[in-house]
Amino acid sequence: MVHGEEITLSAKGHSDVIDITERVAKIVRASGVREGLVAVHVTGSTASITTIECEPALVADFRDLLERLAPSDKPTRHGDTWGDDNGFSHLRASLMGPGITVPVRAGRLVLGTWQQIVLVDHDNRPRERQAFVQVVGE
Amino acid sequence: MVHGEEITLSAKGHSDVIDITERVAKIVRASGVREGLVAVHVTGSTASITTIECEPALVADFRDLLERLAPSDKPTRHGDTWGDDNGFSHLRASLMGPGITVPVRAGRLVLGTWQQIVLVDHDNRPRERQAFVQVVGE
Amino acid sequence: MVHGEEITLSAKGHSDVIDITERVAKIVRASGVREGLVAVHVTGSTASITTIECEPALVADFRDLLERLAPSDKPTRHGDTWGDDNGFSHLRASLMGPGITVPVRAGRLVLGTWQQIVLVDHDNRPRERQAFVQVVGE
Repeated sequence: MVHGEEITLSAKGHSDVIDITERVAKIVRASGVREGLVAVHVTGSTASITTIECEPALVADFRDLLERLAPSDKPTRHGDTWGDDNGFSHLRASLMGPGITVPVRAGRLVLGTWQQIVLVDHDNRPRERQAFVQVVGE
Repeated sequence: MVHGEEITLSAKGHSDVIDITERVAKIVRASGVREGLVAVHVTGSTASITTIECEPALVADFRDLLERLAPSDKPTRHGDTWGDDNGFSHLRASLMGPGITVPVRAGRLVLGTWQQIVLVDHDNRPRERQAFVQVVGE
Repeated sequence: MVHGEEITLSAKGHSDVIDITERVAKIVRASGVREGLVAVHVTGSTASITTIECEPALVADFRDLLERLAPSDKPTRHGDTWGDDNGFSHLRASLMGPGITVPVRAGRLVLGTWQQIVLVDHDNRPRERQAFVQVVGE
């Protein structure tokens, strides 16, 4: 049994972190899958999916970490070549990866209490984001 | 065909690295799945799953790397806000991600000879850890 | 329905980035799967799979980032212990992880226009690389 849905959301960029746990859980419920996997994948090369305890202080810490690892004000060849100023966004996205796969058990996501699924939009401007949620199982 | 099992293990924290390859392989064998996928996911927001050549020198190098990227003695907003001292643990976990998915072929994990599946416990104290292993295939 | 194939490619090392999107898409087409998932996993402990806008300037930026995070000239315990000079390769691989899972919809990979699937070979010498591509779905 396979069931997939696209989700769209408005993101602010600069590694904006958006909790999508409930939207993913809803798609799992709609799928009818009781036991299986759900893959959450962001389409685009300047965003990532991960899990985090999604509270504002930690989200700010996480954005600081990404700023240290791939600074937004550091010139990039990508920027020099194409005139884009979002080289740092691509670097963060490729380092973190585009998606995660979470087990589904008894129709529910297998997550810790303080573990939320989030989309991280690394781009340098607000934009609409699409992620695809694919549920596979029985 | 879907088969899932939870595994529990004792971890020391501070990015302790624990080889779980044999436990995952055993669950794959128990599943009866010959061709498919196995998702290994840690429940909790201060641990990760990855692969590594699991020998002590490299494990020490990897812990050094994480200490450089997200130092355990650097104050965090998460710590200041909640009184927890494990902000660095969350940062490492969200950067690395909560799980991996490995192909299963002829009933075996598709891994290199020096490629082990490990749980990395980033927390700042010893604790019991749970990971969920979900096998999907035929 | 499950269909898997191994792909082999020549890589130059030092975080050489190789676009494998077309090879993965071809295996998805060969599988006959219309709706499902494809897991792309590199066998070996010194390489990774991720997505990137695969253009030369950004690839150079990404290699610079990895060089900053895990420098190739920084001594490692792994190197001191085993006489290997590829400690940095292992560190980059374990940080990024060994694979990704991408949704398949209507027989096609769900990817953005500028989002390619790449193998990143972190090792310190040219070598043959194997990745396993497993498609699961209906």
